[in-house]
Amino acid sequence: MEQTYFQSWADVAPQLVAVAAGRSPADLVIKNGQWVNVHTREILPGHDIAVIAGRIAYVGPDASHCIGASTEIIEAEGRFMIPGLCDGHMHIESGMLTPAEFARAVIGHGTTTMFTDPHEIANVLGLEGVRMMHDEALMQPINIFTQMPSCAPSAPGLETTGYEIGPDDVAAAMQWPGIIGLGEMMNFPGVINGSQQMLAEIAATQKAGKTVGGHYASPDLGKDFHAYAAGGPADDHEGTCEADAIARVRQGMRMMMRLGSAWYDVETQITAVTEKGLDPRGFILCTDDCHSGTLVNDGHMNRVVRHAIDCGCDPVVALQMATVNTATHFGLERDLGSIAPGRRADVILTSDLKTLPIEQVIARGKTVAKDGEVLVDCPHYDWPEHARQTVNLGRNRTAADFEVAAPEGAQAVTANVIGVIENQAPTKALTADLMVVDGVVEGDRAQDVCQIALVERHLGTGGVTNGFVSGFGYTGKMAMASTVAHDSHHMIVVGTDRASMAQAANRLGAVGGGVTVFKDGEEIALVELPIAGLMSDAPATEVAAKAQKMVEAMEACGCTLNNAYMQHSLLALVVIPELRISDLGLVDVTKFEMTDVIKAVK
Amino acid sequence: MEQTYFQSWADVAPQLVAVAAGRSPADLVIKNGQWVNVHTREILPGHDIAVIAGRIAYVGPDASHCIGASTEIIEAEGRFMIPGLCDGHMHIESGMLTPAEFARAVIGHGTTTMFTDPHEIANVLGLEGVRMMHDEALMQPINIFTQMPSCAPSAPGLETTGYEIGPDDVAAAMQWPGIIGLGEMMNFPGVINGSQQMLAEIAATQKAGKTVGGHYASPDLGKDFHAYAAGGPADDHEGTCEADAIARVRQGMRMMMRLGSAWYDVETQITAVTEKGLDPRGFILCTDDCHSGTLVNDGHMNRVVRHAIDCGCDPVVALQMATVNTATHFGLERDLGSIAPGRRADVILTSDLKTLPIEQVIARGKTVAKDGEVLVDCPHYDWPEHARQTVNLGRNRTAADFEVAAPEGAQAVTANVIGVIENQAPTKALTADLMVVDGVVEGDRAQDVCQIALVERHLGTGGVTNGFVSGFGYTGKMAMASTVAHDSHHMIVVGTDRASMAQAANRLGAVGGGVTVFKDGEEIALVELPIAGLMSDAPATEVAAKAQKMVEAMEACGCTLNNAYMQHSLLALVVIPELRISDLGLVDVTKFEMTDVIKAVK
Repeated sequence: MEQTYFQSWADVAPQLVAVAAGRSPADLVIKNGQWVNVHTREILPGHDIAVIAGRIAYVGPDASHCIGASTEIIEAEGRFMIPGLCDGHMHIESGMLTPAEFARAVIGHGTTTMFTDPHEIANVLGLEGVRMMHDEALMQPINIFTQMPSCAPSAPGLETTGYEIGPDDVAAAMQWPGIIGLGEMMNFPGVINGSQQMLAEIAATQKAGKTVGGHYASPDLGKDFHAYAAGGPADDHEGTCEADAIARVRQGMRMMMRLGSAWYDVETQITAVTEKGLDPRGFILCTDDCHSGTLVNDGHMNRVVRHAIDCGCDPVVALQMATVNTATHFGLERDLGSIAPGRRADVILTSDLKTLPIEQVIARGKTVAKDGEVLVDCPHYDWPEHARQTVNLGRNRTAADFEVAAPEGAQAVTANVIGVIENQAPTKALTADLMVVDGVVEGDRAQDVCQIALVERHLGTGGVTNGFVSGFGYTGKMAMASTVAHDSHHMIVVGTDRASMAQAANRLGAVGGGVTVFKDGEEIALVELPIAGLMSDAPATEVAAKAQKMVEAMEACGCTLNNAYMQHSLLALVVIPELRISDLGLVDVTKFEMTDVIKAVK
Repeated sequence: MEQTYFQSWADVAPQLVAVAAGRSPADLVIKNGQWVNVHTREILPGHDIAVIAGRIAYVGPDASHCIGASTEIIEAEGRFMIPGLCDGHMHIESGMLTPAEFARAVIGHGTTTMFTDPHEIANVLGLEGVRMMHDEALMQPINIFTQMPSCAPSAPGLETTGYEIGPDDVAAAMQWPGIIGLGEMMNFPGVINGSQQMLAEIAATQKAGKTVGGHYASPDLGKDFHAYAAGGPADDHEGTCEADAIARVRQGMRMMMRLGSAWYDVETQITAVTEKGLDPRGFILCTDDCHSGTLVNDGHMNRVVRHAIDCGCDPVVALQMATVNTATHFGLERDLGSIAPGRRADVILTSDLKTLPIEQVIARGKTVAKDGEVLVDCPHYDWPEHARQTVNLGRNRTAADFEVAAPEGAQAVTANVIGVIENQAPTKALTADLMVVDGVVEGDRAQDVCQIALVERHLGTGGVTNGFVSGFGYTGKMAMASTVAHDSHHMIVVGTDRASMAQAANRLGAVGGGVTVFKDGEEIALVELPIAGLMSDAPATEVAAKAQKMVEAMEACGCTLNNAYMQHSLLALVVIPELRISDLGLVDVTKFEMTDVIKAVK
């Protein structure tokens, strides 16, 4: 297996010194740029950069002494030289792309470093899946550091995942070359309540000298918040307002402000710096989750930095939040995140600091993109067959699998119904009165209630759990199924017709995972996600086009919500209130306990 | 051997969480202070701190829920609560005190963390000496981290030290619990020239994930400076002007600004922040070298912070430079350097941020000083006998040992003479015409030229090298000897009379090292430094009193220079221009080569 472990400063120091001293020639010299210095927060015109062995040997007013016959010269022509952008926290799987294809999608946007938590694949393929992601990450021409997932399952006892992660896995992973810390500690009630397992995972990370990612998804800033901070998470990206941001940074955590495909938390929090005047060093920009369409159409970290500037942040301060602040947070300050000696030669040339056009991207001393065109190979890991065959249905499903049996003799029932809310992750716990036909509870298009099922797909148990969902607006005979089904990633099937639901489920079983939409018995959209049922190794443009077709298919079935695929894929996320479905049944996430689909007989 | 390895955050997290959540009582609660937040750069009135197991469990508006029957309460009564002060780079030996007595001298001044490079003892007792300092450091109630000395000898080939330090020693020491990084890389010509040994020491430190200390003692900011920065040192404290400071921080190094007993580099450099507006995160305050008298009479890091504020620095920014900036630099940001959960409970109560009276010092959750009175024990290491018997003269010296033989038949000679400069470490290379009497070159009081000798004291070779020195202003019959003789720490003897020089040398041999002054055949001052000939394990007040008497004795012998003991002890420092003496002879430090005492026969 091909893997590139990039040489450290210590490995190449003799070469760096020799180039800086003028004793041997650089591989590359960038001439006459404006050095955006994220250490001093200055813009310094008329500077050169000399590079050897992928690292910066010299930054100063004149690198003539570093130039030899074979030295490549890039004329910056007075443009700004900024450090390559860092994404402080993100999930590659959210792009439905492998690390290689994700990298290929973001290199042209100037992202040269990502801190990624592969907790989706951890639920499907366990530690081995994390290792595969980690290994493909290390093969890339940009820096992808892996945060070891902390919470699989996300809610023990309320769902069954393909695999579980424990403190021993965490301790073992801390020794891998590309592991930078612990992925977001989502089990914040566990930390607050002193869960031995959660604190042991944090301890294993701290003792390895690495960074513990946080996830405190509660507006409460009282005792619970303080107890969580005392547990050890070093950052958080779940804040949504200025008070959240200020509270976290005061406690010595770093606030990661998100602009993802569906996260808009920069504008509401960056005022802590731009208006309240707090020291910006505690603030970091990140994406958390980006769909392939966002990557193809809107950008990646360049989009986030631009947005921060549009929110009134000084451009160099915004760049600090996406470069040196991030590097410092992960203990990598002397490895990357600034244009300074010894650091990886990750440099962007741009002619405007406000609109931030990404004109040339240099990663580890090589030009990897120019005017948006990617000029470098992003090698694919040789994913083994069992990572491509993770949809294990056990048996094909039939319409009967999706029947909700009514209590003996009931003519109608009051059912608990999951209520989808547009543009939001939480659901509402609704109820609806539903008719019983031939002993089976039926959905009701008039009330916008259709069926939802969680189809077991890890162990081949053949299991199906059923319930009802409202809010998608589906009409006609349809079904939609997805093996992206956070966080346990079984299969979520939503439909108005049980035969269609079986069709959709079986189709994903046949193609090895992804998303499909059936209308009137025909498949009208399919996004194949063969790897773990979560990711495609096709280019982002292809995946984005298919995803777009899938959204249009949802519209054709009557769904008018914005970006409702996100709601679909989150309906099994049993850590976010109020009502969810898991492979064990309906879950009341306000009480963290199972509940019944049928509330009462009418 | 008693040693305290303080429990880590990971070790005590369950307790921290339980206290913050209100499930179990704190050991200590500090009530109603103004929280000086060095993360956000804010001052926040009306805050409480709760402490358990020596670490901070909670900082917030109300710690009532953390208080139990046995909880100690300290009423801050609206005073400022600032983090304990950190000295970013210093040498304990400069205080002529052991780590324990140095700690006892600075605790009342609010210093709770020191980063110390024991490179003086490394020259005398090698790696074992470093380990003894390291072990005594870990026994203290405050945090003393050891920087592994990098350069013993400081100038290979120009002197012989008691021991030498090499890359294997560095790699071994990186595994010790109290080692935080590599001590100042003084051999900057070595780094610039790509010395394998120096780069191997740096590499061993970097690969251990620790911080490489720098020392670039040159005003040149050209190629040499850039080559040094490319070699890996992460900080520097040798800058003396604003341009030095700015250049280093731009290169991604941290600028350590010194206010020591004889260093005044804060005022000239802090303008980079106060006037040029650079991001202050790259700046750190330190002392480098403090004499015991400074500690007793003037203070320690409180003196440096006060001075920075007097230079126009915002008080909270100045505090950042002595707390969180330092901690971040050494990778300890989540262990100390701020008042935040998980950190060591090192807190100072002060009623004024500008004059900074150190009213109460809490270290690891215990009150260690109140109104300057130290309330805690600073345990002594059991120094072995061989560490107390390091002055190995081999044989007693006689007046004849100090004779400088003239060339056959010469009546007078032109001699190379070391010229002392008041208040400066560099010397001048002078010449003087001297008479020859009975074949021996004589000093000349009229020209203020007296004799200097380097007496070998490590290996008992019986060696003496002789030369001449000018500038002390000594009159009458006198001699002064010191086993503090940077960096090789043989014995420097200066005198107007050879018999007195022998007397002084033998006296130090008898007492096991220190400083002595003889006048008219009588000893008029003695500072005993039994440990390695460098340090006393007596209290700082005693040592300071004796040192003061020694200064007065120098005055009685006619020396009117300010603080000339420093010049005396630096006359063998063969890395600072222009002329020095070593055990191998006279050294021309402009050329880094040996030179002759007698330049020409008249």
